[in-house]
Formats: sequence, structure tokens, C-alpha cells
Amino acid sequence: MAALSTYDKFKSLVSSGTDTERTSFFSDAIFAIAMTLLAVEIRVPEVPPEELPHALLEQGAQYFAYVLSFAVTGAYWLTHHRLFRLLRAYDANLQRINLVALLFIALTGFGSGVLARYGDQPAGVVVYAVIISGMGLSYTALWQYAWHRKLFGSDIDARLFSYMRARSLAVPLVFLASIPVAFFSPAAAEYLWLGVL
Amino acid sequence: MAALSTYDKFKSLVSSGTDTERTSFFSDAIFAIAMTLLAVEIRVPEVPPEELPHALLEQGAQYFAYVLSFAVTGAYWLTHHRLFRLLRAYDANLQRINLVALLFIALTGFGSGVLARYGDQPAGVVVYAVIISGMGLSYTALWQYAWHRKLFGSDIDARLFSYMRARSLAVPLVFLASIPVAFFSPAAAEYLWLGVL
Amino acid sequence: MAALSTYDKFKSLVSSGTDTERTSFFSDAIFAIAMTLLAVEIRVPEVPPEELPHALLEQGAQYFAYVLSFAVTGAYWLTHHRLFRLLRAYDANLQRINLVALLFIALTGFGSGVLARYGDQPAGVVVYAVIISGMGLSYTALWQYAWHRKLFGSDIDARLFSYMRARSLAVPLVFLASIPVAFFSPAAAEYLWLGVL
Amino acid sequence: MAALSTYDKFKSLVSSGTDTERTSFFSDAIFAIAMTLLAVEIRVPEVPPEELPHALLEQGAQYFAYVLSFAVTGAYWLTHHRLFRLLRAYDANLQRINLVALLFIALTGFGSGVLARYGDQPAGVVVYAVIISGMGLSYTALWQYAWHRKLFGSDIDARLFSYMRARSLAVPLVFLASIPVAFFSPAAAEYLWLGVL
Repeated sequence: MAALSTYDKFKSLVSSGTDTERTSFFSDAIFAIAMTLLAVEIRVPEVPPEELPHALLEQGAQYFAYVLSFAVTGAYWLTHHRLFRLLRAYDANLQRINLVALLFIALTGFGSGVLARYGDQPAGVVVYAVIISGMGLSYTALWQYAWHRKLFGSDIDARLFSYMRARSLAVPLVFLASIPVAFFSPAAAEYLWLGVL
Repeated sequence: MAALSTYDKFKSLVSSGTDTERTSFFSDAIFAIAMTLLAVEIRVPEVPPEELPHALLEQGAQYFAYVLSFAVTGAYWLTHHRLFRLLRAYDANLQRINLVALLFIALTGFGSGVLARYGDQPAGVVVYAVIISGMGLSYTALWQYAWHRKLFGSDIDARLFSYMRARSLAVPLVFLASIPVAFFSPAAAEYLWLGVL
Repeated sequence: MAALSTYDKFKSLVSSGTDTERTSFFSDAIFAIAMTLLAVEIRVPEVPPEELPHALLEQGAQYFAYVLSFAVTGAYWLTHHRLFRLLRAYDANLQRINLVALLFIALTGFGSGVLARYGDQPAGVVVYAVIISGMGLSYTALWQYAWHRKLFGSDIDARLFSYMRARSLAVPLVFLASIPVAFFSPAAAEYLWLGVL
Repeated sequence: MAALSTYDKFKSLVSSGTDTERTSFFSDAIFAIAMTLLAVEIRVPEVPPEELPHALLEQGAQYFAYVLSFAVTGAYWLTHHRLFRLLRAYDANLQRINLVALLFIALTGFGSGVLARYGDQPAGVVVYAVIISGMGLSYTALWQYAWHRKLFGSDIDARLFSYMRARSLAVPLVFLASIPVAFFSPAAAEYLWLGVL
């Protein structure tokens, strides 16, 4: 076997490998933290005691944003992170794409807070839709890249991959499609989202 | 063996399985984050220095809400998550029920904050009781579903399952029962809770 | 072997066991979250731009509280959680004592915030000393209980246990001793703490 | 074999070992929490609804600080924590150096908040550069110490180690170099940072 250059050795030891578990664990931790922090956007009312029932009922938009965000990120965790386990190896680019997806997941708390406060405004709905689409498209790009670089195990054939990719496009496409709708009716855009759950 | 449809193959690879450890890890992470965030509801007083002792003593309701919430979620983590390990497999519905339970667990910080501020108000006590009941009933539903779908290992027989289910109902039933009590006396409802610990 | 009662079977399957790893993981997660949240107590100054250097320098008490708290909890994580791995089994009481220790660990952020703001006040120093002592004494109690119930592996003999217990008492005893000192001089109490690091 | 003193036995059981996985897990958890909390520094605007689009666009500095901080800490997680796995053993000093690195990582949220608000001020840029340099230099020190104490596995030879060390110095040197630059032009310092990504 020819001698490896120092850089190649570094790359083979550090930038790529087959121990996808650790990346999976790290991603799971970010999902868990982001999902738990969603609840922080529901504020404890600061009103005189006798107005508490009224104040709690008025927070409907905060509860809606919480349940929606928990459901969307939870559903993503369920399917996409399980897909992650089907990878038999990773390389540096796959890791980078995964970090982009995690960057969007960590933003869901911000998106949820914007939606809770400005859910009747086009801009509020667009912020949320951009974050969820970004998360979804990052994962679709990740699967496409993994397929291209043959990083999946042999249990994934071309047909199954096409099916998976189509499924992974459903959520981001619906959220992308909701963006132009939001400029006419923020409420209509939100109804669209519920269709995908 | 007959050929599997693409959808069936996806389902068998992604939506169900026997590696319950990862779900258990994810749930543990949400428990750990939610429990640590409970302490964030105890505010650092913002008073002139000479009033600090008084201000700290006045926060009794915040300490009570913290210890109560830590004890209830901690006790749930101890018994229910250990039960989780007795599952020999999961399917997509079990995962969904678990996510509903986690949605309530992530809400305990909000509930604890409401209780700390409005613990003498019926509405404050009801918010807390609804969150804890929701967490408890989700887990009871999870065990019932797992039993129905034969997802437990062979070390769980019918008698043991009945015993487990009865135990898992104790906390949510007490918190549900405290809801009508709270309308007459918030303090009496809180005494009821202490009985279950 | 005589038939086990349903309760005994439940106990043997759920309340005790030898898989101490999961408890260790859960405790590690609470340590990690609590330590990361310590930094949240350092506030971004909200001043006119030209006053930023001055405002940053004035936050000395916040940096001190952060570094002290990170060092104390980090040191606890290092020694005490590694001790945890020497346990060969756990039971329900050990789990409860561990939860009490975690309750204090989750409080370090609150204690650190109080210290940063009121470090020159007896009451501020006492709050911090109580939280750290509570954490320390809980762990000493945990080792004592584990030794009493023979939950340690055979690599721990009586002499080693005595040594471990003595070491584990150092931090809480210093922090307890600092409480009366704080009433005369908060600064002197804080110097005492530095001696233990 | 000569009898070990109690202290030596304690040391061999508790202060050092070959199970580097747990430290790796703990460090990963702090990375994951710190990175997710970066998003908390992006504030939900509190403006009249019609001003939302404008308010969101004005938060450019917050988005920049978030993406930069997520990218820098994410890149550190990728390379440095994978290096951690090449260690075949640890001792108490290595653990302490690692805690110092984690102390800086937990500070990235504070640094990011300062940068978002005061990115056009020398002091704001310096705070950020100090935190990132501190993180980077801690890791370089960790590798140097590990090499000196022969804690790496045999797959790391002198040449590969030199290469790794040089790489690990790139980020902290650039951020250190940006500190004097910031006093003349904060913007120029930030351009320097982008060069290292």
C-alpha cells in the first residue's frame, strides 16, 4: 500500500468514518433541546390575579404555535433521524449539510415565538415557513448527497430511495408553497400547514 | 418470501423497530432539560441590597413550585422511563403517543411558573393539574397501547401489567380530581397533590 | 424458588437493577445543562455604545460567579460522577438521593445569579453556600447509603471508601463553614471557597 | 506487585482511565446546548404589527452573529471532538483542560449576544474574539498535553500530530490577530474571521 500523505491520514482518521452514531446522538440532543425550549415561548401571564383566566385564554396563539412546532419538529425527528441510522458512513460534506439542518432546527424556537405574536401578519407566517422549509430542504439535500456518494447501506435500493426523497419533500414543499399564500391570507397559509401533519 | 412493496419496506426499515434505546435516550434528554429549566422559574430578586433577605423569603411559592415539579417529573422519570426499557419493540403510533407525553413534560416549566405566581388562584392550580394529568394519562395510554399491540417482552404478564397500569393511573387521577377542588380551594387541591408523592 | 408477588416482580424489574449507566447518563445531562445555563446569568450590557468597555468591566462579579460555579460543578462532575460508575447496582432509595443531588445542581444557575448581584451581601453568599453544600452533602449521603447497602463493586474496600467519603465531605464542609463567616464578612466567606478548589 | 496506597488506588480508579467516551459525551452535550442556545439571542421583535417586516430586516446583526457562532462552534465540534476519540486514555489534568475549553464554549452565547448588539464597537468585537480564541487555545493545549503524556493511540505519529496542532492553531490565531485590528476597524476584524471558515 502506498504511503499516505499526512493530510490524507488526517482525513481518513478525522473527517470521515463509519461511526455515524455520534453524529446521530449530537443531532438528537439538538432536537431535544430545541423542542423543550419551544415551551419557553409560552409566557407566564403577568396580570392581576382576577384576570388570570382571561389572560390564559388569550394566549391561544402561543399554544397553537407550541403544539404546531412540537409536532413538526417531532415528526422530523421520528422519520429523518431514523433514516440517519441507515447511513453506513459519513464524510465531511455530509456533516456540513447536517449542521445546516441543525442550524434551522435550533431556530424553530425563534420562529415559534414570531408566529405566536405575529401569526396574523404575512411577515410572521413567512419567517416560520422559511425556517421549516430550510430544515426540510437541508434534510432532502442530505439524503440526495448520501445517495450520490453511496453512503447508504445495501438495504436502500433506488426505488426505496426515490420514495424516501419524495416523502422528505412533502413538508418543505408545503411550507414553501405557503409563502406566497401568506401575502394574501396568513390564516390560509396556516391551514395549508395543518394538511401536512 | 413475497416481495415487499416500497412502502412496506420503508415502514419496516424506518417506522418501527426494536431499537427502543434511541427513543429512550431522546425522552431522557427532554426530561433532563425540562427538569433543569424548572429552576429558571426561580427569579433572582431585583431589590435594594438591604431588602434581599426579605425578598428571598417572599419567594416561598417559587421554591415550592420548583421542588414539587422536580419531584413529580423526577418520579415519573424513575418509574415510567424504566418501564420503557421493558418494551421489546415500538411502532409509529407508540412513538406518537410518546411525543404527546414529551409535549406535556416540556410544558412543566410553564406550569411551574404559573403555579409559583398564581398558586392561590383556581386557574393557576388548574393549569398545573392539567399539564401533570396530561403527562400521566399519555403514559398510561402508552402502556395500554403497548400491551394491546404485544410490544412488551415476555417478562410482563397480564397481572403485572394490570398492576403497572393501576400504579401509572395514581398520579393523573389525583391531579384530575384536584381540578374541581381547586375551584373551591386552591390550597386544598395542592394538599391533595402532596398525598401522591 | 417461591413465586414472587406482583409487587416484588415490579420492584425487581422496575425499581432496582444493575444498569447504572442510564442514571449516570441522565445525571450527566443535568450537569451539562446546568453548567451551560450558568453563562446565561452573564447579561449582555444594554448601554450606549461608547459606554460598552466600562459596562463590560463593571460585570466583574458576574464573571467571578460564572467561573466559580463552573469550576465547582465541573469538579463535582469529574470526581463524583466517576464514582457513580463504581456502583454495581442501584435501588429506589439511591435513585431518590441522586434526584435530590440533581435538584441542587439545577439550582446552581439561580445561586450564581444571586451571587453575581448580591455577592457583597451576607444573604447572597448564604444562598450560594446552601446550594453548594446541599449538592455536596447529597452526594456524601449517596456514597454512605451505597456502602451501607453494599451497592459498590468489590474494588472498593473499607479503607478506600473512608478516603472517598472524607474527600467528598471537603467541599460541603467548607461551604457550610462559610455560612456563619458570611454574616461578618461576605468577602471572607468567598475567600474560604477558593481554598477548596 | 507492591501494595498501592489508598490515594493511588483512588487515583487509578477515579482520576484517570481509558473510558474517554463519557467525557466525549459530556462535551458533546455542552456543545449541543450552547449551540442551540445561540438562537435564543435572536429576539422576537416587539413592535406594532405593521412594522414587523422592517423590524425583522433590522435584525441583520443578530442573524449574522448566530450563523457565524453556529458555524465556528459547529466546525470545532466536527474536528476537535473527533480528535478526542483518538485519545486512548485521559488523566485528571486532561479533564481540567477540557473543562476550561467547555467554559469558553458555554460563553459563546454571551459573546454572540454582545456581537449582535455591539458588532460595530471595538469592545464588542474583542469580547467575541477573546471567547473564540480561548476555546481554540484550550483545545490546542489539550492536544499538546495529550501528546506530551502519550495519551494518543498509536495511529497518531509525530508528523500527523504536528499537522493536527498546526490546524488547531488556525482559528485561535486568526481571532487573536483580529483583536488589535478591531481597535482600528471592527468591520475589518470581522472580515478576517470569515477568512478562517
